[in-house]
Amino acid sequence: MSDAIKFLEPRQAVVSRRATIIADLADILPPECLVHEPRELVPFETDAFVSYRRLPLAVVLPKTTEQVAAVMKYCHRYGIPVVPRGAGTSLSGGAIPQEDAVVLGLSKMSRILEVDPANRTATVQAGVTNLSISDAVSPQGFFYAPDPSSQLACTIGGNIGMNSGGAHCLKYGVTTNNLLGVKMVLVDGTVIELGGKHLDAAGYDLLGIVCGSEGQLGIVTEATVRLIAKPEGARPVLFGFDTSEQAGACVADIIGSGIIPVAIEFMDKPAIEICEAFAQAGYPLDVGALLIVEVEGSEAEMEAMLKSIVEIAGRHHVKTVRESQSATEAALIWKGRKSAFGATGRIADYICMDGTVPLGKLSYVLEKTSEIVARFGLRVANVFHAGDGNMHPLILFNANDPEDAARAEEAGNEILKLCVDAGGCLTGEHGVGIEKRDLMRHQYSDADLNQQMAVRAAFDAGWLLNPSKVFPLEGRPAA
Amino acid sequence: MSDAIKFLEPRQAVVSRRATIIADLADILPPECLVHEPRELVPFETDAFVSYRRLPLAVVLPKTTEQVAAVMKYCHRYGIPVVPRGAGTSLSGGAIPQEDAVVLGLSKMSRILEVDPANRTATVQAGVTNLSISDAVSPQGFFYAPDPSSQLACTIGGNIGMNSGGAHCLKYGVTTNNLLGVKMVLVDGTVIELGGKHLDAAGYDLLGIVCGSEGQLGIVTEATVRLIAKPEGARPVLFGFDTSEQAGACVADIIGSGIIPVAIEFMDKPAIEICEAFAQAGYPLDVGALLIVEVEGSEAEMEAMLKSIVEIAGRHHVKTVRESQSATEAALIWKGRKSAFGATGRIADYICMDGTVPLGKLSYVLEKTSEIVARFGLRVANVFHAGDGNMHPLILFNANDPEDAARAEEAGNEILKLCVDAGGCLTGEHGVGIEKRDLMRHQYSDADLNQQMAVRAAFDAGWLLNPSKVFPLEGRPAA
Repeated sequence: MSDAIKFLEPRQAVVSRRATIIADLADILPPECLVHEPRELVPFETDAFVSYRRLPLAVVLPKTTEQVAAVMKYCHRYGIPVVPRGAGTSLSGGAIPQEDAVVLGLSKMSRILEVDPANRTATVQAGVTNLSISDAVSPQGFFYAPDPSSQLACTIGGNIGMNSGGAHCLKYGVTTNNLLGVKMVLVDGTVIELGGKHLDAAGYDLLGIVCGSEGQLGIVTEATVRLIAKPEGARPVLFGFDTSEQAGACVADIIGSGIIPVAIEFMDKPAIEICEAFAQAGYPLDVGALLIVEVEGSEAEMEAMLKSIVEIAGRHHVKTVRESQSATEAALIWKGRKSAFGATGRIADYICMDGTVPLGKLSYVLEKTSEIVARFGLRVANVFHAGDGNMHPLILFNANDPEDAARAEEAGNEILKLCVDAGGCLTGEHGVGIEKRDLMRHQYSDADLNQQMAVRAAFDAGWLLNPSKVFPLEGRPAA
Repeated sequence: MSDAIKFLEPRQAVVSRRATIIADLADILPPECLVHEPRELVPFETDAFVSYRRLPLAVVLPKTTEQVAAVMKYCHRYGIPVVPRGAGTSLSGGAIPQEDAVVLGLSKMSRILEVDPANRTATVQAGVTNLSISDAVSPQGFFYAPDPSSQLACTIGGNIGMNSGGAHCLKYGVTTNNLLGVKMVLVDGTVIELGGKHLDAAGYDLLGIVCGSEGQLGIVTEATVRLIAKPEGARPVLFGFDTSEQAGACVADIIGSGIIPVAIEFMDKPAIEICEAFAQAGYPLDVGALLIVEVEGSEAEMEAMLKSIVEIAGRHHVKTVRESQSATEAALIWKGRKSAFGATGRIADYICMDGTVPLGKLSYVLEKTSEIVARFGLRVANVFHAGDGNMHPLILFNANDPEDAARAEEAGNEILKLCVDAGGCLTGEHGVGIEKRDLMRHQYSDADLNQQMAVRAAFDAGWLLNPSKVFPLEGRPAA
């Protein structure tokens, strides 16, 4: 696949000055914050979109916003590209470096700065992991809602860059719905603050545009996030159907009736088998599709909501309904789902697509996805956040066979175009990165893309921040 | 007050060409879509921030996106400023025209285009009123959540421009949290589409930045909004306290405990008396401050939530707790609250401030507000959305006394600065408009403002769209 991925031509003027740049950075930062030995650069050569590797010019790991600002000021002055990096868990290649770039890693900025229950907020440094926010506020009865499968490792800074989601975002929204403010270093080293603990912000909502901008508008160093009260109880329930069509139509009907569970996850037959073999989660194996629906609240609330959902599922000929009877069983059900990617990786290579479709089109897109993958002679497993239409077809292939890999990539592109044509979108939570850069032209008109790039230029006219990502390489304005 | 308000110098080259411009516009639009006789322009000379009036050059009332695009293309080519207008209910002067500008009113674009229950969305034209969206989707069991007090009149286009809120936004969020997509005409007449029925959007979140941009980035002509299922039941409950401090601390404690009612409205003693005299809502008159807390859901859910709230209120020495016993009583309670501005207008002139503060600072800011207003020899009534910290001090004064008016304005500015200094914000839901333009320098650093203006320039480099608003007149980049 890597053959298909092009980078911008490296700025030779930067590459040739590597030794000087490293010496300059060593003046700006303490020694433990600068990585430049080739073998030490290896951990930074790719991210979770592993189809491409390249060593960066250097890696800086600042400990303070002031250090980030000093690095940016320096790189801006000398025209050195900068690739920001959280934990490197990006599935779309958002953190992949390039040889003329300094990777700016936030991993040393991992402190919880404040927990404020009266305002339901936590203020944290950008390198803090997603899960450790919930851990820190748990004693006060709160949690941070967006929960990517990688939440043990991924950082809030990366979540902001990609506007990350997760299984429980159906009820609570994705990162942008849970972000209240950031401290951000602009490309020239200026530090700005956007949003805060208050509702709204006077002037333009720059906070909103920063969320999901994949590190191209500035380096977020601190974030204030909204906290949610832990529910009284929560219970996942399994609904098994004969066909994916039935399950998909059931999802649209649940949402159409006005019910919003915390999560509605979807698994087709291949996904059920893969996950059950790995996690022994107790999934039924005699069904063609499975929904994991999680309800929460008091016992009475859960009962009432479940009653309505069971009734709707009945109309779609549900075959199996199974409530978890214990916390252990509930944990197992989620373990099965959350380990889907890892479990799939044990049996085959795969690429995970991340398209979003209007719910009314769920069944149609699932059916067409099967057709597309079959046409390329490949297999697919579907395991995804059905409640908000965020699909994750996992296309299985053999990475040692370049032709198989090329077919998988082509099938993936067709599936994403299918999502767009159905009124949906190229991405739900993984971002565009390198992976979907060229597909942006399928989603957007030239006018749309030009307007996005004009906004980018208002932050970074020289294309220094994460320059190879998000936009097609051709048709960019001159830097 | 109007003396204090400056406009940009009118572009004389535009004003002097008025007759030609009107003739050109008459070629572009059908006759019923163009208003230019001076006496017919009068209804457009101001908005609900009535301290300033000026006749526009002309008013256009297009019926289609294509007509909007044609007007923008023409105005862009000839450098004619354009002031977009919904229903003219802005409290910050967002729709006030200027004599060198064409007012572009969306009132003729008021159709509901589609209601889609499976995706919980409605797609409407920008000139549709806020309340008529809820009316249109009510048969399917849904409503549109943000509910400004002016919801009978104000339009969704205006709501998007100002990122409007309302009493019930505590649970459901303000406009930006309920907006999924727009069709928008750029300054040069290009039509773009942002967002859609799907979760997330690839590339930058331009939709988010358009919401709250006060008509400066483009003309929104269509919007897709999220619908919410109507709850099983809803019940407002009155909590009376001896002091505002107790009531304020109680609000912070409710939210801090993780409970999110649909609404927590606050009224101090003057506001209670004014509203009760007007609406006979049955508010207790022997208390110093009143909270209207609305809970919703099933009977059991409401009971459970109320139990917790009553317990917390008890810790703050609540004096009166009264649940509404009927739909009539509930409607009266809300009528009292929602008519607060009108009722105040019957007894005095007033200016309504719109600051937002972190909840932990509510009591402090209320106390300081009283001090400030007393220092200026004026009176204040406080009636506001306490649950999300969105304060609305109504400063009472005599508009026929210019000195009194000047004092009111000065007191208002001090109060807004107080909100900012307490970690809050100049606005919660009314926008910046003309009113708070110069205070932006108190909220933002030069770097912050310059970045906002750079983004504006990426949409409208010539400052043609609503140019006198949002940013201080001094220190703007050359157009």
